[in-house]
Amino acid sequence: MREFIIYSNKGVTTSDFHIKDLPGSGGRMDLMARSIISALWLSHDMRRNTKIHINLNGEPDPPITITFNGKTLRKASPNEREIGIWIKKALKRKKDLKNGEWLETHSGIQISRKSFEDLIEERRNKDIYILKEDGEDIRKKDVKEDSVYILGDNIGLPERITEYLNDLEAQKISLGPKSYFTTQSIILIQNELDRKKVG
Amino acid sequence: MREFIIYSNKGVTTSDFHIKDLPGSGGRMDLMARSIISALWLSHDMRRNTKIHINLNGEPDPPITITFNGKTLRKASPNEREIGIWIKKALKRKKDLKNGEWLETHSGIQISRKSFEDLIEERRNKDIYILKEDGEDIRKKDVKEDSVYILGDNIGLPERITEYLNDLEAQKISLGPKSYFTTQSIILIQNELDRKKVG
Repeated sequence: MREFIIYSNKGVTTSDFHIKDLPGSGGRMDLMARSIISALWLSHDMRRNTKIHINLNGEPDPPITITFNGKTLRKASPNEREIGIWIKKALKRKKDLKNGEWLETHSGIQISRKSFEDLIEERRNKDIYILKEDGEDIRKKDVKEDSVYILGDNIGLPERITEYLNDLEAQKISLGPKSYFTTQSIILIQNELDRKKVG
Repeated sequence: MREFIIYSNKGVTTSDFHIKDLPGSGGRMDLMARSIISALWLSHDMRRNTKIHINLNGEPDPPITITFNGKTLRKASPNEREIGIWIKKALKRKKDLKNGEWLETHSGIQISRKSFEDLIEERRNKDIYILKEDGEDIRKKDVKEDSVYILGDNIGLPERITEYLNDLEAQKISLGPKSYFTTQSIILIQNELDRKKVG
C-alpha cells in the first residue's frame, strides 16, 4: 500500500466550518481536499493501492486524523467541495471517538484522535520518506511496495516534527530541481510509483 | 518558452457566469483555472518561462482564447476563484475584440477570437506534442526550449482536432503507464522540463 501522511497546521478539528469557505473557515481545508484528490484519483480510475491520512492540528481540538482509503472508498468523486463534505461528516462523529481507535464514518473514510507521531510510530517497520531539496532523487530510489510519504501544508512541517523525523532517520528524497506544492508533489510521487510499478 | 494549449469543449464564451459556480455555469471553467495554476505556479515561485492558452469552445460565442503569460503576469495568486475572476474580466472585454487580434486585459492576460487551429498554425515552426498512452515516453524525448503541449479537458479532444493534429504530425508522448487528469499531466510535463532544464 502506498501511504501519504499530510500534516496540516491549521486544518480545523471541528465540523463547524463552511463548505463554501474551505480555505478560511476550514483552515486551508481546501489544500487537504486537493491532496486527497491528487493521491486517490486518476483520469478514469481510483487508486485502490493508496491511503492518505490528513493529520489536522488546528483549533479547537487537535490532533485529529482522517484517513481516505482508496481500496474501500465508495461513492466519492474528485471534487473539492464534495471531499470537504466527507471531511465535515467525519468530524461530526468526533464526539464518538475513543482514544486511539479508528471510527469508520463512510466506506473508506475513518477518523481518530491519533497524532502525527502516533501515525508514524505505527509505520516504523515501513520505509518513510520526506521531501528535501537536497534529498536523493526519487527516480534513483528503490522504493518498496509499502512506503510512506510525509508532506507538509502551505506552512510546512513544524520544527518539532522535522526533528522527530530526522531522529527516526526518515529517508530524504527530492522530486526535481524546483520546490513544488504539496498537491504537485503527491502527483509526482504517484507517477514515479506508477512507473516503478510499486503497489 | 514552454507553452500549453488547453482545448475546452464547454468553457463558456461570455463573462456571464458565476464565480462561485465555475464547474456548472462556467462550463467546467474550474478545470481551466486549475490548469492555469498547475502550469504557472510553483511552491514559492511563478514560472516565468511558461504561457498557457485556454481555448474556449462553449456557448454563446466560440471560439475565444485567453492566454496567461507567466513572464508578465502580475498580482495574481494560485487560487481557483481568483483565476476565475481574471477569466471573467477578460471575457468582459470580448466586445472590444477585432478578428485575429490580441487584447491585453491585465498584465500577462490576453484575449482573442483565435480558434484552436489558429493557435496551432502560428506555432507550426515549433515542436508540438500531444499525449497518447502509446506515445514515446517524455523522459526519452529530447525536448527543445520552444515546445508546445496540447491537452484536452474532461471530455477530451474532438475527433476533428485529433485528425488535424495527426495531419500536422504532432509528436505523441506518454507520461507513464496510467491515464492522468489534465492538471496532473501539466504538472508531470513541467517537472520533466524542469529536470531537462528546458526554458
